[in-house]
Amino acid sequence: MPEKIFRVNLTNLSTSLEAVPADWAGLGGRGLTSTIVAAEVPPTCHPLGPNNKLIFAPGLLSGTAAANSGRISCGAKSPLTGTIKEANAGGTSAQIMARMGCKALIIEGQPKGNSWYSLRLTPEGAIIEKEEELIGKGNFAVVETLAQRLSGSIGVMSIGQAGEMQMAAANISIKDPDGHLRSCGRGGLGAVMGSKKIKFISLDAGEGKVEIADPEKFRAANKTFAKALVDHPVSQALGTYGTNVLVNIINEAGGLPTRNFTAGQFEGHEQISGETMHDLIVERGGKPRHNCHKGCVIQCSQIYNDANGNFKTSGFEYESIWAMGADCAVDDLDQIAEMDHILDDIGIDTIETAVAFGVAMEGGMLKFGDSNEMIRILKDEVAKGTPLGRIIGSGAGNVGKTYGVTRVPVVKNQAIPAYDPRAIKGIGITYATSTQGADHTMGYTIATNILNVGGSVDPLSKKGQVELSRNLQIATAAIDSTGMCLFIAFAALDDATCLPALIDMINARFGINLTAADVTNLGMNILKTEHNFNLAAGFTNKDDRLPEFFELEPLPPHNVVWDFSGEEIDTYWNF
Amino acid sequence: MPEKIFRVNLTNLSTSLEAVPADWAGLGGRGLTSTIVAAEVPPTCHPLGPNNKLIFAPGLLSGTAAANSGRISCGAKSPLTGTIKEANAGGTSAQIMARMGCKALIIEGQPKGNSWYSLRLTPEGAIIEKEEELIGKGNFAVVETLAQRLSGSIGVMSIGQAGEMQMAAANISIKDPDGHLRSCGRGGLGAVMGSKKIKFISLDAGEGKVEIADPEKFRAANKTFAKALVDHPVSQALGTYGTNVLVNIINEAGGLPTRNFTAGQFEGHEQISGETMHDLIVERGGKPRHNCHKGCVIQCSQIYNDANGNFKTSGFEYESIWAMGADCAVDDLDQIAEMDHILDDIGIDTIETAVAFGVAMEGGMLKFGDSNEMIRILKDEVAKGTPLGRIIGSGAGNVGKTYGVTRVPVVKNQAIPAYDPRAIKGIGITYATSTQGADHTMGYTIATNILNVGGSVDPLSKKGQVELSRNLQIATAAIDSTGMCLFIAFAALDDATCLPALIDMINARFGINLTAADVTNLGMNILKTEHNFNLAAGFTNKDDRLPEFFELEPLPPHNVVWDFSGEEIDTYWNF
Repeated sequence: MPEKIFRVNLTNLSTSLEAVPADWAGLGGRGLTSTIVAAEVPPTCHPLGPNNKLIFAPGLLSGTAAANSGRISCGAKSPLTGTIKEANAGGTSAQIMARMGCKALIIEGQPKGNSWYSLRLTPEGAIIEKEEELIGKGNFAVVETLAQRLSGSIGVMSIGQAGEMQMAAANISIKDPDGHLRSCGRGGLGAVMGSKKIKFISLDAGEGKVEIADPEKFRAANKTFAKALVDHPVSQALGTYGTNVLVNIINEAGGLPTRNFTAGQFEGHEQISGETMHDLIVERGGKPRHNCHKGCVIQCSQIYNDANGNFKTSGFEYESIWAMGADCAVDDLDQIAEMDHILDDIGIDTIETAVAFGVAMEGGMLKFGDSNEMIRILKDEVAKGTPLGRIIGSGAGNVGKTYGVTRVPVVKNQAIPAYDPRAIKGIGITYATSTQGADHTMGYTIATNILNVGGSVDPLSKKGQVELSRNLQIATAAIDSTGMCLFIAFAALDDATCLPALIDMINARFGINLTAADVTNLGMNILKTEHNFNLAAGFTNKDDRLPEFFELEPLPPHNVVWDFSGEEIDTYWNF
Repeated sequence: MPEKIFRVNLTNLSTSLEAVPADWAGLGGRGLTSTIVAAEVPPTCHPLGPNNKLIFAPGLLSGTAAANSGRISCGAKSPLTGTIKEANAGGTSAQIMARMGCKALIIEGQPKGNSWYSLRLTPEGAIIEKEEELIGKGNFAVVETLAQRLSGSIGVMSIGQAGEMQMAAANISIKDPDGHLRSCGRGGLGAVMGSKKIKFISLDAGEGKVEIADPEKFRAANKTFAKALVDHPVSQALGTYGTNVLVNIINEAGGLPTRNFTAGQFEGHEQISGETMHDLIVERGGKPRHNCHKGCVIQCSQIYNDANGNFKTSGFEYESIWAMGADCAVDDLDQIAEMDHILDDIGIDTIETAVAFGVAMEGGMLKFGDSNEMIRILKDEVAKGTPLGRIIGSGAGNVGKTYGVTRVPVVKNQAIPAYDPRAIKGIGITYATSTQGADHTMGYTIATNILNVGGSVDPLSKKGQVELSRNLQIATAAIDSTGMCLFIAFAALDDATCLPALIDMINARFGINLTAADVTNLGMNILKTEHNFNLAAGFTNKDDRLPEFFELEPLPPHNVVWDFSGEEIDTYWNF
């Protein structure tokens, strides 16, 4: 069916279906959300006010049989960073959205009064409905209730209590095929959804299907593509240990930020490692491999059960485990899993929230390693919106400001994730220059700095890091537009058959003739669109800097500091 | 005696006396603090880290017999705004500092460990001493204890609990001649002092005196100057009613921000007005007139007693009374006086803290008008540094972010004071363009918009406001360098004898030949120095804007919005 823009206006509670503007036809995912935000959102508006817009878009290949193409992008001006923001996640929503012919969903305006709403998306368009029952509930209750309330194989995108309370770390949860949750995690997009008073969005494509212009070519390309993914050793490690395979690797590299970024190795790394996790999962009858969306051939997710063999959490990621673990000096995986579950339910970013705890520990709010108190705070304070809970829920930068802490690992007010930039310098360039605040997924130099994927660049040397980060950020912006999971990048970097097959699939899907150069141009254009939005919002190159403490405090065990000058960092934008 | 720079380094606990660099010789007060900050503080440093510096400087005429010349300037990079910051206050410190030959005190570095210190300043230099007894105590206890501990007529500059906890709204208190307190109020300079672990600074000039190059000329000029001050009708109103004479005037103008800036008139204005206050003070045996420093001929301060005739507060300013009153919908002057006393004791900015309460009321933390809860929060939460207390103590912008509020009256994260920019447009230009965040004292257009001093500019029209604000900001920067109270500006604007007499005094003091044009150039240079610091810190013209809600929400009773375009505001810097 022909693709449409679904537009929902909360100020006057109206909806419309619009033809896709010609400029947007070749875009999907992040490319489309960032283009729409840049076109329609005033860069200096308040992120939680009526002039911000929340955009959802499936990727160019979402809804097709293409392996690993089930990512949904969500974009807006971020209440956490003040920059443009895109966060993407797996789950079923991208595929359903694409199958109903929804090129993008644009949610704008703001309702008067205190009523809450939900959106129901079908091929006929969006319907706004009042919602009362689920207000104040966590994401798991939303998914379970809707499974009973609505029939068929529906998608759900929802916010928990954090989003309702417009906490700057609130995320948007995306239901996966088994009713577990994935997250558009970073930048507080859940708060934007909360500011629009939308508790959840249900999606039902009915019999809708994505049309393929050249099915035969598509099938052949997908076969090549999937084989490249499956064959890559990193894919295989991810399938076995999940992303948490990285705890021991990054600890060994001396770049595992520990106790709020005061050391690069954690004495408890073995207890929270992917290897330990794998054995526990097997022992307790969980699943070490699990797909977050149909068609994933890597399956880095997992089902982690508690000691009694009952489901505790899924999608138990390295960065989450690091943040609650090493960064807060917690070495108990079950405690971390308990927190992961609560964070999913409240609907709040694991990285931002746990780094906020690390800063709070530094500021004296609680002790390093006190996971019981962390759990209590999440349940009794964050979920309930007490003053303490709101401080944590507003992110690491907020904790730093509120407690007068100077060691605050944020860039553009977004928490720095699981790789210390002093010991792994390429990722520091990504943190500094990303259009969206500190975010490893924006240009994952760990691949080349640590995993020797796509070549090898010494993590402790400044040499080649700017180029590495730039090339990966350009490629990532393009990948984020296809609906593809970022983990295709390992194969794309090392296997010559992978990227051509991906481009063949896009061409076969739309009956077009993109080249590799077109894809690179797409990535560059997205970055420039995002960068220009930020400049118009008042950001400058002075914001492309790491916090001062990285320059002042050597990181053990390598005893290295962050030593890029501002001028060196600024060469990133020479393209 | 020859003037010296007193330098104190807390990293290595050393002190030194330095010759005054030639470039600094002609500077004092704000001109000197801003010049030193710009020269020695890296613009992108963390305001609470070791690279920020805290500078104190008396004005060019401080320590002389010049009327109203007792203001001390304090400067640093602000933890509240991230900009350069200067806050000045009366009290006895400027005069003592000048008399001991201290051109400026520069406090730099940061001690390791948890020890607290005090500084003792004498003509021989600064001495660092460990302090234990007064840690955790309020400012009144500091002043009372030091009156017993130290002999002679000493000056005291101290921080309360808010500064110790490095709250972004913490101020620095300056003892007045009667042991009451004045404040370097805005921008969180108390937090910078706390970050240096300095609880208080005592000053003893002994027999030190300021040398006057031409005493005869000085005396004559001072006589003319003081007469101009005393004769001006605004000076007389200030002597009778204090600055609080403005409640009824600004309410009548429809520009008294009420209930977190949702209206321009407050139904309880009479109960909190200067007229009501005057009668209460007289009835209870207080003093309607009181000088905050020796030589003040305006005497806008007062001694406000409680219903039992006991001292409650002094320096009970319009902006404080407005903030705790109309902005929080409190119409009980005794409750406001009680809060004013507590705020002085804790050492926290009345404007920032009360506007923070207004935003907190909007966010649901407490109810509008609930002064009992405000008092409880100040005593039990802010003073003790509970999570709620730290949220309030971190300022209005912090409350807005932590509670997801969009109606947050701040510019560069500093709370907008007692004049709504929609109804009094000139002051809006000052808020937007000030180098230091929203601050009425930076360019007090109320003089001309409302009081018809220095001519008359219609407050509701855009015409002439940029020029008005620019001229006043330039003049203010110069006045802030002399040690003069800003209230000399009324006479300077209307009485042709005033400004020449002021310049004559400066020339007589130093044996130089400044002209009026030199003074204007000084003001312009200070503003440009400050602006350049901010640009280097990453600020842009996008930061010279009022919050979006002023453009979206008409203000009753005039139902006007803020309608200056960014381009129009930016013309401010055309000089």
